[in-house]
Amino acid sequence: MKNHRIITISREFGSGGRTIGRLAADRLGIPCYDEELINRIAKESGLAKDFIKESGEYAPSTSWFGTALTGRDFSGHSISDDLWNIQRKIILELAEQGPCVIVGRCADYILRDKADLLTVFIHASLEDRAERIVRIYGERPELTPKKRLQEKDKRRRAYYQFYTDMKWGDIRNYEIALDSGKIGVEKCVDMIVELYGNR
Amino acid sequence: MKNHRIITISREFGSGGRTIGRLAADRLGIPCYDEELINRIAKESGLAKDFIKESGEYAPSTSWFGTALTGRDFSGHSISDDLWNIQRKIILELAEQGPCVIVGRCADYILRDKADLLTVFIHASLEDRAERIVRIYGERPELTPKKRLQEKDKRRRAYYQFYTDMKWGDIRNYEIALDSGKIGVEKCVDMIVELYGNR
Repeated sequence: MKNHRIITISREFGSGGRTIGRLAADRLGIPCYDEELINRIAKESGLAKDFIKESGEYAPSTSWFGTALTGRDFSGHSISDDLWNIQRKIILELAEQGPCVIVGRCADYILRDKADLLTVFIHASLEDRAERIVRIYGERPELTPKKRLQEKDKRRRAYYQFYTDMKWGDIRNYEIALDSGKIGVEKCVDMIVELYGNR
Repeated sequence: MKNHRIITISREFGSGGRTIGRLAADRLGIPCYDEELINRIAKESGLAKDFIKESGEYAPSTSWFGTALTGRDFSGHSISDDLWNIQRKIILELAEQGPCVIVGRCADYILRDKADLLTVFIHASLEDRAERIVRIYGERPELTPKKRLQEKDKRRRAYYQFYTDMKWGDIRNYEIALDSGKIGVEKCVDMIVELYGNR
C-alpha cells in the first residue's frame, strides 16, 4: 500500500471539495471514492445509505440524550463504532487496490503512515459557501444557509475529533489547504493534479 | 491600494517561509519586504533592529513580570504598542507603492480589506523544521532544536493573537497553506507564483 499514492480530501460543507476530488480523479485517471464508499459501507453493514451519510457527521455523544440518539449501549459501544470499524476496513481495502481519491470519512487519519498520501483540505468563507449551497441544493425555508453550514461544520469537526483525537481543519495535518471560494474550483483541481506528480 | 496584488507570507519558524517569499518575489519581479521592513521600522522608531525582530514575536503580557519585560506602563501602554503602530503605518505605505511580498509581521491582518491579497501560510513538521534550523542556523547546545521551534511558534502565535484577535495559523485565514517539508521549497514557490497570476 505504501507504493500507492492516494489523495484524501477533507472539506467544509459547501466548499466544493467533493467536486474538486471527482475532477482531480478524472484528470489523473484514478477512481474517486465518495458515493461508492457509502455504497460499500451500506452493503457490508446492512444499514441505509442515508443513515451512513448522516452518521459520518455525528459524533457519538456520551450524554444520556446522546445515548438515546446514537444507540450507545451501557458498555459505551454504539452503532457509530461498528460503522467506524467497517468504514476503516473498507478504506484500507480500497487503498490496497491502487492510487485513488477518497473524499471525507477521516481517510487521512485512517491511512496515515499506511500509504503515500497527498492530504488536501478545501475551505471557503461562509459567504461563498452559502452562495454555493443555495445554488446547488436550493433554499431551506426553516434554516438560513449560514446556520446550515455552521451545523454541518460543527458535526464534522466533532466526528473527526471523536474518532481521530485530532483537530479537524488543523493546518498542520494537510500538505495543501486551499480556499476554493477565492481560487475557484478549476484552479484548485489544477494545483492538486500538479502536486500529485510532485514526488 | 486595492489594485495592487500583494502576497503575505505567514510561516512557522524553520519552515523556509522567508526563503519561499524571497524566491517568489524574485520570480515575479516584485520587491520582498522582510529585512527591508525591519530596517524601515528601526529608522522610524529609533530602536535597534534586533529588538524589533524579537519584539515582533513577543506578545505584550499583562502580568507584572510581563510589564517589567516589555515596558508596559500603568496605563497599559507599551513600547510594543508603539512598534505595532509604526509597523502598521509602514506596511500600509509599502502596500500603497505597488505589488510586493511581505513576510510575517501580521501583514495579512493589517492589509485585510485594503489590498488584493494572496495570503499564504507555510508550515512543516517539527522533524523537518528541526533538520532545517540546525542546517541553517547551527546547533545551540543549551536548547534542543524542537524546544527552540516550540518557543518561537508559541511567541508568534501569542503576538499575532494579541494584536489581531485572530488565531495564528487558522486554516480559514489563508488562500493557500503548504507543507514545505513535504512539498519542497522550490515547488512551493512554483505554486505561489502560479496562483499569483490567477485573477
